[in-house]
Amino acid sequence: MAQMRAEHDEGFQATILTLFPDMFPATLGLSLAGRALENGLWSLDVKNIRDYATDKHRTVDDAPLGGGHGMVLKPDVVSAGLADVAGAKGRRIYMSPRGVPLTQSLARALAQEEGVVIVCGRYEGLDQRVIDHHQLMEVSVGDYILSGGELAAQILLDSIVRLLPGVMGKEIGHLQESFETGLLEHNHYTQPRVWNGMAAPEILASGHHEKIAAWREDQAKELTKERRPDIWKRFLAKNSGNSGESS
Amino acid sequence: MAQMRAEHDEGFQATILTLFPDMFPATLGLSLAGRALENGLWSLDVKNIRDYATDKHRTVDDAPLGGGHGMVLKPDVVSAGLADVAGAKGRRIYMSPRGVPLTQSLARALAQEEGVVIVCGRYEGLDQRVIDHHQLMEVSVGDYILSGGELAAQILLDSIVRLLPGVMGKEIGHLQESFETGLLEHNHYTQPRVWNGMAAPEILASGHHEKIAAWREDQAKELTKERRPDIWKRFLAKNSGNSGESS
Repeated sequence: MAQMRAEHDEGFQATILTLFPDMFPATLGLSLAGRALENGLWSLDVKNIRDYATDKHRTVDDAPLGGGHGMVLKPDVVSAGLADVAGAKGRRIYMSPRGVPLTQSLARALAQEEGVVIVCGRYEGLDQRVIDHHQLMEVSVGDYILSGGELAAQILLDSIVRLLPGVMGKEIGHLQESFETGLLEHNHYTQPRVWNGMAAPEILASGHHEKIAAWREDQAKELTKERRPDIWKRFLAKNSGNSGESS
Repeated sequence: MAQMRAEHDEGFQATILTLFPDMFPATLGLSLAGRALENGLWSLDVKNIRDYATDKHRTVDDAPLGGGHGMVLKPDVVSAGLADVAGAKGRRIYMSPRGVPLTQSLARALAQEEGVVIVCGRYEGLDQRVIDHHQLMEVSVGDYILSGGELAAQILLDSIVRLLPGVMGKEIGHLQESFETGLLEHNHYTQPRVWNGMAAPEILASGHHEKIAAWREDQAKELTKERRPDIWKRFLAKNSGNSGESS
């Protein structure tokens, strides 16, 4: 499916609406995502929300109706921006702490699409009518408050881009990582075997690949159970159906 | 407490260990966090992990002991980096999807400290012995995989910096936001009252501040209940103790 997509068009298309266009690609222009951008595996089109303001002061926000602190982005301005990118590919997403939490499976689902349009809020956020009218999908990167949606959008894009065909060196690379197995990842060790008086676990030098895999899985299970009971519970529920095969 | 800190020294000190120093401040150098950085409300010291490699190839990683894909950052190299910044202020944090989830209360706790030292991993991550030896606190920004710890570090810093004294215009500004009340935030509306055939809720034009506040709180509760039963459950548990005062 992802393979087909890569053959048919020019790559994943990211479209951003922001009041701070200089924030893109910035950090995302370097390393893995940056190289993939240079190589045309994805593209980035950044629109300045302020360009859709219609008055001479280029006003983008106004006081909240009903009073209260802060400012709210004007519905007409944000809607004009979304109308301008009506032809852009992918779901319309608004980065918001009220949104559906970003998970690895959501990143994977979005990476299967042809692109994504991301609205980055600032101040108190968007007028609710824009969210409703454009049926924006609200996505949250975590339960904390940021100064704007731009870093959240970069997190979302990074999580998607690394899953695009051709971006990671080895396709198998991400299959054993945290969340892909439904568990937190096991501990990692490398040379030297004894460092600073601390020896790496002996089993890793045993050469028994099956035993090593079993040890790693046990460790991932213990770690998940201890650190993230919520993830452990979901893992158990998911794996209870095929108990004949797994332990 | 935070007020005292601001009077006593030169601001919150962030120290970063990364293989991609050009990723800082990048996005964080703009807007709210960027202005605060320019104004000396926080400082940023970025170290290149590669500078602590000792061989002529400046090797920072090696194959995982026990086999498997990817590369693991060498314990001696990362440890040398941490030793070099031994005098830096604040907790030692390693951005990792296996870590304790970043929450608004963790951001608030970290903003009370004098600084933070953040290690950004790449590839398969750090050798466990470095995490153990330096007692790194593992912090996760969410349940998804990124190409490295740099964007996660920026998320963490942004969540901290906006809470530092003097950064936000009004101290009250963030008290009503998502998570600060224990709830997701209510809907926002601004002018015009009727936009695109959609009227903002009438109550917001009523001028009854108490009724508006009650309406917003009800909406925040409904929204939280519907979208995030996990947060709703915590809210109920937290507020069950003082049921005489709250509903």
